[in-house]
Amino acid sequence: MREAFHEQLDAIFLDLAAICAQVESQVRLATQALMTGDAAVAEQVISTDIEIDQARERVEDNAFELLSLQQPVARDLRTIVAGLRIVSELERMGDLSVHVAKIARLRVPDVAVPAEVQPTMQRMAEVAEAMVVRVHKVLNERDVDAALSLREADEEMDQLRRRNFSELLGDDWPHGVEAAVDLALLGRYYERIADHAVSVANRVVFVVTGENPAAADV
Amino acid sequence: MREAFHEQLDAIFLDLAAICAQVESQVRLATQALMTGDAAVAEQVISTDIEIDQARERVEDNAFELLSLQQPVARDLRTIVAGLRIVSELERMGDLSVHVAKIARLRVPDVAVPAEVQPTMQRMAEVAEAMVVRVHKVLNERDVDAALSLREADEEMDQLRRRNFSELLGDDWPHGVEAAVDLALLGRYYERIADHAVSVANRVVFVVTGENPAAADV
Repeated sequence: MREAFHEQLDAIFLDLAAICAQVESQVRLATQALMTGDAAVAEQVISTDIEIDQARERVEDNAFELLSLQQPVARDLRTIVAGLRIVSELERMGDLSVHVAKIARLRVPDVAVPAEVQPTMQRMAEVAEAMVVRVHKVLNERDVDAALSLREADEEMDQLRRRNFSELLGDDWPHGVEAAVDLALLGRYYERIADHAVSVANRVVFVVTGENPAAADV
Repeated sequence: MREAFHEQLDAIFLDLAAICAQVESQVRLATQALMTGDAAVAEQVISTDIEIDQARERVEDNAFELLSLQQPVARDLRTIVAGLRIVSELERMGDLSVHVAKIARLRVPDVAVPAEVQPTMQRMAEVAEAMVVRVHKVLNERDVDAALSLREADEEMDQLRRRNFSELLGDDWPHGVEAAVDLALLGRYYERIADHAVSVANRVVFVVTGENPAAADV
């Protein structure tokens, strides 16, 4: 009975890792659509989002069933409650990829990100994607060190966000209001993906160690 | 024993309603700071946020204790899990009020919102605040009709968001990039407060009726 329970608990974390892999793909494709102005890829991101929503529902149903039938306590209970929160955050990261894809689609056949600010936006996208990759590892291996290392990546993201603002608010910004608004929102979306990544990782650390990392409430 | 349990369950919803009242105040004060450029009020919003974070922790601890000690099933279990999600969303609405207050503070002694677009932003703020007020009622009275009526308000918010964009992206926008970026982000923050309000209300409907309203996954 208990063994079956722990198999079900592990299954939830495998499902979370699988959803995280989907999110990773969505972030990567959304960035590709954004940087190349590829409408088909943008559409793909937008239409794939429902798969993540459905996967989230399955995890929620499984977690609820475990809570109902197995009446877990202590660490097992903490793990399931963490799983419920993690799946919400992963879904939200998927939604944010869709927001990126929608800005890409809105500007087709143009590219929403002007050439000279592409390095900053490209780096934001890379950092966000790398953070999702690391979260996947954290979920798969419950790797506390990998989880804690996400904080450095998040600091780079904060710096990039400031650079993003200073670029578009400079006196010599030549691309007008629309491009600036796009970039500010895109910066916000990547920053939020990073925030959620840190939060998911912190929740895993809490499950494994029983202690909340300092930045758990991001 | 069961009666004591239901008192504790009700206590969680009273706590949620109390947090919602704090969020309501934060949204109102953040808007006041924004529309008047009042640095002291902005600071107050920013420094008060920690109280909402702490209240969230208390609700989480109580919910966790109830799950652990009482081993609820079926509707009781659903209610506690919903409570955990609702408190995360309320905390997030508080964070979004802080984001509004920070933009207000950044532009002091100026006002971030230029006079001719104040009607749209003021209305966004009013709709958001009214939605939070209604969520408070929904939490206090588990009022399903009030919950469902939030969807209309959310539609108005979507329209306002489109107007917000068309104002700042018009060819005759005279206020430059910085003001446009502020307005786009402010519009996003109020829109997200509204999204969370709808989501909280839908969760209450789910607890009361056992059915997910169509828009539950906002």
